[in-house]
Parts: sequence; C-alpha cells; structure tokens
Amino acid sequence: MKTLLIIGIGAGNPEHLTVQAIHALNRTDVFFLLDKGSAKQKLMHLRRAICERYIDHRRYRFVEAASPERDRGGDYTASVHALNQAKQRLLERLLDEQLADGECGALLVWGDPSLYDSTLRIVQAIAAGGRELEYEVIPGISSIQALAASHKVALNRIGGPVEITTGRRLAQGQANTAGSVVVMLDGENAYQHLQAPDEHIYWGAYLGTEDEILIAGKLADVAEQIEQVRQAARRANGWIMDTYLLQPPPGDED
Amino acid sequence: MKTLLIIGIGAGNPEHLTVQAIHALNRTDVFFLLDKGSAKQKLMHLRRAICERYIDHRRYRFVEAASPERDRGGDYTASVHALNQAKQRLLERLLDEQLADGECGALLVWGDPSLYDSTLRIVQAIAAGGRELEYEVIPGISSIQALAASHKVALNRIGGPVEITTGRRLAQGQANTAGSVVVMLDGENAYQHLQAPDEHIYWGAYLGTEDEILIAGKLADVAEQIEQVRQAARRANGWIMDTYLLQPPPGDED
Repeated sequence: MKTLLIIGIGAGNPEHLTVQAIHALNRTDVFFLLDKGSAKQKLMHLRRAICERYIDHRRYRFVEAASPERDRGGDYTASVHALNQAKQRLLERLLDEQLADGECGALLVWGDPSLYDSTLRIVQAIAAGGRELEYEVIPGISSIQALAASHKVALNRIGGPVEITTGRRLAQGQANTAGSVVVMLDGENAYQHLQAPDEHIYWGAYLGTEDEILIAGKLADVAEQIEQVRQAARRANGWIMDTYLLQPPPGDED
Repeated sequence: MKTLLIIGIGAGNPEHLTVQAIHALNRTDVFFLLDKGSAKQKLMHLRRAICERYIDHRRYRFVEAASPERDRGGDYTASVHALNQAKQRLLERLLDEQLADGECGALLVWGDPSLYDSTLRIVQAIAAGGRELEYEVIPGISSIQALAASHKVALNRIGGPVEITTGRRLAQGQANTAGSVVVMLDGENAYQHLQAPDEHIYWGAYLGTEDEILIAGKLADVAEQIEQVRQAARRANGWIMDTYLLQPPPGDED
C-alpha cells in the first residue's frame, strides 16, 4: 500500500500553512512537484522553501516533472479532461517508479484542494483504477479567504449568498450578480463586461505574497486602473494570479 | 491606539490553526470570549485549549461575557441588525474597560471570519465610530473546506460555479441547484424540500472535531438518514453545527 497526501498550502504566504498541513509535510517521503509555464520557477522555489521551513528532518526527496499543458484551442471542458488524463498518466508513472510500497507521497496544492484544482479528481481516478493507493486531503487557506482578509471585507451580505465562479462564466453573463460573486481564473478582465457601474469590486493579485497588490472601489471608478495594474504586473513578473469579489452597492439590508 | 485581531481558528480541529493565526495568538494580551447558548461551554473550552496549546507565554488574559441572543420572531435581517448593534455596544464597553491603550485584543472566530460571521461587520462599525482602533483579519479553515476534505470531494465541477448559501434561501427555492451548492446555517433540514432526488449530498456535522459525523449519497437515499442522525446528535450534544454540499449527478462534463 502507498499513501498520497493532497496538502493545501495556502495562497502564497508560507504562514498560511496549518498545523495539520505541517504534520502532513513531516509524514512525507516524496514530494511530487508538477509545475508548468512562466510561474514555474517561482512556485517551485516557494514549495521547496515551505518544506525546508516546516519539516524537522531531511529524509524527504523531491521528484520534479514538467506538467502537461492544456490545449488552448477547442472546447474548454474537453481540453481540461484531456489535460487531466495526461496528468493522470504522468502521476501514475511517477507513483509506480518513484514511490516505494509503504512510502508516503505528497502533492502540494496552492490554496485549497477543493476549489478549482484538478489534483483531487486525478488522484480519485488513479485510486479507482485499481492501484493500492490510500489518499488524504488536507484543507488550505484559499486565495478567496486571503482576498477577504486583506481587504477586511465579509464575502456575504447578512444572510445573503456567495457565488464562486470563473471569469469565463462571468463574461458569458452566467453569474448571479444580485448577490456577492467571487471570480477565479479570470484571464480576460471579465469584470469589464459587467453593466453594473455601482458594483463594488475588491481585487487582489499575488495574494499572501510579498508582491500582493490590492485595489478596491466602485467598479466604474477602478476597472481601468485594475486592468492597467494587472497588465503591468503580468509583464513585470511573467505571470499573474488574481481573484476578486464583486458586491452590489450596500443597501438597506447591510 | 488599541489593536484588535479577528482570528479565524478553523472549523473545530485545533490543527486547523495556521502559523499566521498562532503568531496572532501570541501577540494578544486580551481574548474576548463571547459565546452563547447550549454550545457555550464546549466552545469556550475549545478556545481556551487552543490558547494553552499554542501560546508560548502566560501573559494573556480572558474576558468572558454572555453574548446577546437574536430575537427569533420577526424579520430575519432586522433581527440580525438588532443583534449586531447589541453586540457592538457590548464589545465597545469591553474594549473601553478591559483593554488598555497600546494593548492588543483578539476575537477568535470559528471557521473563517469572512463567511457568515458578524464579527468583522461589528468591528468595522466600532472603528468607524471614531475609537482609536486598528484591526486585522486572519483567515481560517472554514467548515466548508473541512467538509470537502473529509469527504475527499471537490466543491466545483470542472469550470462550474459554487454557490454558498443558507438553509433559509435553499428552502425558499433561491439557490441555483444547476451547479454545486453549499448550505450553511440550516436549522430546518432544508434539503428535504428539494425536488431533486438524483442530487448528491455530502453532509457533515461537528466537522474537524472528534464528534465529526459524515454521510454522503444520493439525496433520495440518505435524506431521511441525515434527518434522523442530525436529530439524535442534537439531542445528545445539546447543539449541532453542520453543513452540506449538494451536487447534480455526475454528467458528461465531469
């Protein structure tokens, strides 16, 4: 039997690590690091720094592999499925070749493994495929929570709902902007499509890291500024990871 | 100037504490404990145990006060407003009388301070009222994340939305059950009103604690079981804190 831990390591601040996650790090023999693209070096470095800081021994090892990339053309969901299958084959090979029976491997997931991350789905598929594999999930602070904490704002209005969605869905008018909406994975400034100038936006990039940028205000007042800051930051760093909260203007109920 | 830390302490497992939260605990001179009702003793005890476990010194003190209770009759939002104003007056008095200038106070919040918790709103109102008060928010693992981790389930389908809402709104048909729905604060088994027998439900109570209970399955198959287990647990413990995830049956997209 092999064990695989899916460990949420927070949004980028090494102090987001929970005591539960630190215990999980200390149980791990092999860390599988599967990053990709322009953020790769920075993210690999952060993961290694987290291990060095929190693990009491030096009996662990890293196994690095280039993660497959998503085909940007064609249908989104189909391309994610294809990507996940490629990741599954890669991880199966790594588990077979690099993790001995009785050993414990780990995948370190930014934010929380339960939100917009394919790791859990891929590990489920591997376990369902008949390998002798036990797995555990350790929750982590998500970028949404880091965003709310840095802006000191509650996600929900009193008794109101919060919709967590993607930039894609917001741009397609599929989000219910009558309530609070949190937007993740927005590559295309979808907030610019919103016909709701009175909405408030709380935007953050590189949340929890020393590069954190925060902008908040009425959408009509700050949308241009966010787009410019976003573009400049992406150029400067080679990549950007950002998220935002949209809320209707405060009414009688709040 | 006085400082007030709003510290998310996770869903009930003391190992949900983040390193950031532990540092915040260690900066604190005065912990304000404002619990109420039948869960009071247990929750007070858990908070004290967290302080004893994670604080390196013994120079801190506790200030306990009975939290005002919400008027259960009448309009929900109005009753929450009235409750929050009563809490604000109480906390203002405690800050004036029990926290010296230059000292650091803290409020320990179950889960994450940004979700269905009035603490942040109340502290904002106090700071806006002209007191010399700085405040900070430290995110914590929410019961939603504990639920997903314990069930080893992703909250969202690939590229799909997640709506976080209340039992009240679900019962009134105000939740979009085409996607994933997380229900909090459900005192009345609102899942029983859902005309969607194929929906999957992932239910959990006392998440993260030694009393954790998990039930998952097709809503039509397990709804009765959940209601019975919930009732028995509430009777045995005097209180219950539970949450659940509803998802449409897996389709082609997942």
